[in-house]
Amino acid sequence: MLRTHTCGELTIKNIGQPVTLCGWLARSRDLGGMTFIDLRDRYGITQLMFNMDTHKELCEQARKLGREFVLKTTGKVSERSNKNSKMPTGDIEIIVEKLEVLNESKTPPFTIEDESDGGDDLRMKYRYLDLRRTPVRNNLLQRHKVAQAVREYFDANGFADVETPFLIKSTPEGARDFVVPSRLSPGEFYALPQSPQTFKQLLMVSGFDRYYQIVRCFRDEDLRADRQPEFTQIDCEMSFVEQEDVMNMFEGMVKHVFKKVRGLELPAFKRMTYTDAMKYYGVDKPDLRFEMKIVELKNLSPSGGGKGEDVVSGKNFKVYDDAELIGGICAKGCAEYTRKQLDELTDWVKRPQIGAGGLGYIKFNADGTLKSSFDKFFDEASLKKIAEKFSAKPGDLILILAGAEERTRKALGALRLEMGSKLGLRDKNKFECLWVMDFPLFEWNEEEKRWFAMHHPFTSWKKEDEGLLNTNPGAVRANAYDVVINGVELSSGSIRIHNRSQQEKMFKLLGLTPEEANYKFGFILNAFEYGAPPHGGIAFGFDRFCSMVINNEDYIRDYIAFPKNNSGRDIMLDSPSDIDAKQKKELGLK
Amino acid sequence: MLRTHTCGELTIKNIGQPVTLCGWLARSRDLGGMTFIDLRDRYGITQLMFNMDTHKELCEQARKLGREFVLKTTGKVSERSNKNSKMPTGDIEIIVEKLEVLNESKTPPFTIEDESDGGDDLRMKYRYLDLRRTPVRNNLLQRHKVAQAVREYFDANGFADVETPFLIKSTPEGARDFVVPSRLSPGEFYALPQSPQTFKQLLMVSGFDRYYQIVRCFRDEDLRADRQPEFTQIDCEMSFVEQEDVMNMFEGMVKHVFKKVRGLELPAFKRMTYTDAMKYYGVDKPDLRFEMKIVELKNLSPSGGGKGEDVVSGKNFKVYDDAELIGGICAKGCAEYTRKQLDELTDWVKRPQIGAGGLGYIKFNADGTLKSSFDKFFDEASLKKIAEKFSAKPGDLILILAGAEERTRKALGALRLEMGSKLGLRDKNKFECLWVMDFPLFEWNEEEKRWFAMHHPFTSWKKEDEGLLNTNPGAVRANAYDVVINGVELSSGSIRIHNRSQQEKMFKLLGLTPEEANYKFGFILNAFEYGAPPHGGIAFGFDRFCSMVINNEDYIRDYIAFPKNNSGRDIMLDSPSDIDAKQKKELGLK
Repeated sequence: MLRTHTCGELTIKNIGQPVTLCGWLARSRDLGGMTFIDLRDRYGITQLMFNMDTHKELCEQARKLGREFVLKTTGKVSERSNKNSKMPTGDIEIIVEKLEVLNESKTPPFTIEDESDGGDDLRMKYRYLDLRRTPVRNNLLQRHKVAQAVREYFDANGFADVETPFLIKSTPEGARDFVVPSRLSPGEFYALPQSPQTFKQLLMVSGFDRYYQIVRCFRDEDLRADRQPEFTQIDCEMSFVEQEDVMNMFEGMVKHVFKKVRGLELPAFKRMTYTDAMKYYGVDKPDLRFEMKIVELKNLSPSGGGKGEDVVSGKNFKVYDDAELIGGICAKGCAEYTRKQLDELTDWVKRPQIGAGGLGYIKFNADGTLKSSFDKFFDEASLKKIAEKFSAKPGDLILILAGAEERTRKALGALRLEMGSKLGLRDKNKFECLWVMDFPLFEWNEEEKRWFAMHHPFTSWKKEDEGLLNTNPGAVRANAYDVVINGVELSSGSIRIHNRSQQEKMFKLLGLTPEEANYKFGFILNAFEYGAPPHGGIAFGFDRFCSMVINNEDYIRDYIAFPKNNSGRDIMLDSPSDIDAKQKKELGLK
Repeated sequence: MLRTHTCGELTIKNIGQPVTLCGWLARSRDLGGMTFIDLRDRYGITQLMFNMDTHKELCEQARKLGREFVLKTTGKVSERSNKNSKMPTGDIEIIVEKLEVLNESKTPPFTIEDESDGGDDLRMKYRYLDLRRTPVRNNLLQRHKVAQAVREYFDANGFADVETPFLIKSTPEGARDFVVPSRLSPGEFYALPQSPQTFKQLLMVSGFDRYYQIVRCFRDEDLRADRQPEFTQIDCEMSFVEQEDVMNMFEGMVKHVFKKVRGLELPAFKRMTYTDAMKYYGVDKPDLRFEMKIVELKNLSPSGGGKGEDVVSGKNFKVYDDAELIGGICAKGCAEYTRKQLDELTDWVKRPQIGAGGLGYIKFNADGTLKSSFDKFFDEASLKKIAEKFSAKPGDLILILAGAEERTRKALGALRLEMGSKLGLRDKNKFECLWVMDFPLFEWNEEEKRWFAMHHPFTSWKKEDEGLLNTNPGAVRANAYDVVINGVELSSGSIRIHNRSQQEKMFKLLGLTPEEANYKFGFILNAFEYGAPPHGGIAFGFDRFCSMVINNEDYIRDYIAFPKNNSGRDIMLDSPSDIDAKQKKELGLK
C-alpha cells in the first residue's frame, strides 16, 4: 500500500507515530511561518502541517500545490494546538517530513465542497468530480448499506439470489422495450427486461420457492423529470403463499432496512384500499404524515353511486350544479390567507399539471363568521353546513375544487400535498408507511380503446369479482398491493396467475389474440401446464427506496452513480452517440 | 402460508405433529393396501402415506395423481417402519388426512431426476423443468452462496458496491459491443458494457478508494462452446496500491470463498511469469495439478535466443532440422503404449484444433532400451541424450512435437493436458491456484496489422520496459496478473494508467488518432487531469468462478439460470426474434 493509514482514522492515540497518508488537497492555508493542508480521502480529512523554520524547502513545495492535487505524504502524528472537535481527526495533525505529488489537477470547474457552485449540467458532465463531494459520495456509500441490509434480510429468510438474463425477448405490454439488434441472427432483436417478472415466475415453477434479486431494469419511456431509462429493482417472489404472507414478509424487509441503516423502529404499516386512498387522498399513494382528508360535497360519478343532491347543488351556482364531483380540504389555521395568497393558490391549481378550472374557498373566520368565494350563491347557513362536513373550526380555511371525477380527485390530492408542504406538515423526520390494497385489475386506455393491466398481465383477480370479468372489467379488483411511504410509491406486488387458462383469459381481455399471446408468452403459458405452484411477490424501486431511506427524499438522481439527464443522455459520456459504419453494417442497420 | 413446514425439515422429533406440506409429486408407489408419494420441494423430499383401509377415498384420489402435480396435504407425522438413512426426512412419513391438488401437470418431456434423459436442446427449451432437477437447482443455490461469500469479504474490507450504468457509449476495442438504438435520439445508439472498466476507474478518480460489484457484462462475439453473450463479472478496483497489494487482497477473496463454500483452506498461491508459463506449460493458464513440464530440445525462435544447435538437429531428419521449436513432455509409465494408442494420440495432435504436423516419441523401455519413431535418424546414444533432458526413467514415454514456435507451444500445452487427463492426474478434489504475471502489454493482430492491448488499453506498463514502447512494443511487459486455478483462467487484473499523457500514448500505439481517442474516451482522458490517484484492480469471471468453486468444473452453462445456446439463442424464449413494425419505425430502423 502507498499509505499506512487513511485520512479518517488518526486520533490522539496515534501521537508520535510515523505515518504515510495519501489523498487529495482539499484546502491549504499559508500562514507565513507555517502552511496547512487539509488532505481528503473517502474516509475523512487530516491536517498536514509544514513548518517554514524546520522544513523550508518542503514548505515552499507545499505552497505551490493546487486544489485536488493527489499527494503522498510522510510525517509524524502530533497533537494540534487548535483542536477541531467537529472532525474525528480534529485533535491531531501530521508534521510533514516527506511529500510526493502522485498526480496534478487542473482547477476543477466547480468547487468540491458540500455545497457546490456547479450547475446541474456541469456537475453531470464532470460526474467524477461531483462524486468527489462528500454528500454525493455518502449517498452512494449509504446505498451500499441499504443493499447490504436488503440482502441480509432475504438471505436470513431463505431467499435465493438468482440472476436472470438481460438479453431477452421483446414482449411490450405497457411501456416500450429497449431492443438490441442481433448480429448472428440478422433482422432479429433481443430486448432488455423491463423487469424479470416472467423469469421469477418461472423460477417459482422450477421450485426455487423464494427468490430475490437486486437487478437493473430498462424502460424506454418518454422521460419525465426524475425518471431514468435504466433503474434498479429489488425483485422478489415466493411460492405457496397468500397475499397476507407476502405483505408480512416484505413489510419485515422495509423495517429491517430502516433499523439497520437509520436506526429507526417502524411501527406496523397502515393499510388502505385503493378506493379509500382515491376518495380521501385523491391519489393511490397517500402521504399520511398529515390528515387533511378530502371531503366530498357532491359525487355524481359511479364511485359516488350517482348521489346527486348535496350541500352544494341547487344554489344556482352553475359550476357546482354541473360538476360531477365537488370536494375539498380543510387547511387548519389558514383563514387569515390574504387575497394574494388565495390568488396564488388559484393560479397553482389552474396550472396544466393540476388542471382545475378554479378554486373555491370558505374562510371560517376567528370571530365565527364565514366568508366564501361564492357568497353570491350561498347564504351563511349553507356555508355553515359545508363547514360542518369538514369539522372546520374558527380560523380554518376550506378549499374546494369541482369538475369531472378523475381530474378533480387528482387535483384535490395535489392541492392537499401543496397545503401540507406550506403548513410544514410533511416532516423530514417522519416516516408513515402504508399498504395500498385491492387495486383495480384493469385501467381503460382511451387512446388504444382497450383495457390495460393496472399492475401487469400476470396479476390475479379476486375470486369474488370473477363474475365481473366479462361484464364489467373495470370493477374487478386485483390481488395487488403497493408499499407507500410518505406519499411515495416504493413497490408494487401481487399474487400471480398460475394457471394456463386464467392467463389466457387475461391476455384475451387485454386484446391479445391467442396467436399473439402464444408468440410472446408461449414459454410461460407452457410452464403453467407443468405444475406451477401458487405464488406471489413484489418489486421495490431500489433507487427511490434508497433516496427515501437515506434522506427521506423523493429524488433519485443523487443516489445513482452515473445517472442520465431528463432526455436520457449521459452527458459525461456523450451517449447515445453515432456508431461506426462497420458496426451498423454488421448489424444489418443502415 | 399454505404450509406449516417444508419437505426437508420433518424428523423423528416431529412425530405425532399435525402438519401441512406443499410440493411436487416426485414419485408414487401403489402397494395395494397402501400408496406412497414422494413429495418434493426445494428443501427436500417427504414421504406421504395413504392407507386404503382407513382412508379409501383419499387413497384412490392419490393413485390418480401424475408426476409433477402440485399438492397440498395435511396429516400427521409418523415414524416409518422402513427407514431411509440417506434422507434427512427418512425416518418419518406423513399419514395423509387431507389432500388438495393445487395444480396439475402434463407429463414432463424428460424425467425430473438427478440424471435426466433429456437432450441439451430439450432441457434448454424447458429450462424451468430442468431447473427443477436437484443438481441444477443446487448449482444455482450454491452460486448464491459464492456471491454471499464474495460480498462478505469485500464488505468486511471496506469495498463499496457501486452500480455502474448499462446503457453506455460504444467504444469497441477488441470485442464487439452490443448496441441499443435510441428512440429519443434517432440514429444514435447506446452500447451495453463489455465491463465497467472505465466507470470503476472514474470511481477511483472520485475517491471511492475501494469498489466492487457483481455485475452483468456483454460481448458480441462469434460464440464458441461455453461462451455466453452475457456473463457476470466480479469487478473490483483499489486506489493507492501497488501490484502486490491488489494480488494479496484478491487472493484473500478467493481463499475466503473456498473456505466458506467448500470448507477448504487453500495454501498461498504459486506465482509464475507469463514467459515461464508459455515455456514450461505451453499456455498462459497452466494446470499445476501435475508436473509434466515441457522440455525444449531446440529453439530457434526469438524467445530461445536463436540457439540453433541442439540434441535433435543435424541428424538428417529434415522435419527436426527445419523446425523452429522442438519440445516434448515425458509421460511417466507410458512406455507400454501400443501402436494403436500412439496412432490415436498422433491423430489427436493432428486435429485442426491442435494443428501439429505429427507426433514423435521415444519409448524408454523397462529393460533400459530406447525405441523411437525416428530410429532411422537417431542412434541409441542420441536418444539417450534426449531422454536425459527429460530425466526420463525406464517405463516412461517421451512425446515430441516440432514446428513453428507459437503453434508448437500451444500443441504441447494441449498434449500435456490430454496426457494429464489420460493418466488421471487432473484430480477433481485438488485445487492448484496460481498467479500468472508479467504479461506482454501488446499482442500483434495479423489481420488488422496493428498492436492490440493484451488485457485492455488501460493497463500500465512496467517502468523498466518504457524504453521499448517505441522500438519493440511486443517486448514491453504489463503490470498485469491473472488468477488461474487448475488450468482455468478466472480473473484478469492490472495496475492502470492514471495519467493523461500515458493514456494518450497507449491509444496512439493502438492506432487511434487523437480525434478518435478523444471521441471515444475523452471523458476518461479528461478525468485523468483532475487528480487521478494511482489505482489497480481485477475482474473475475463469476460464472466460471462458480463452476470451479462448486464442482471444480470448467463448464458454465449449468451455473446460469437461463443460459443461451452456442448460437446465442434463448431456446426457451425463442429469442432473438422479430419485433413489431411499430417498434422498428419508432427506432428509425427499417
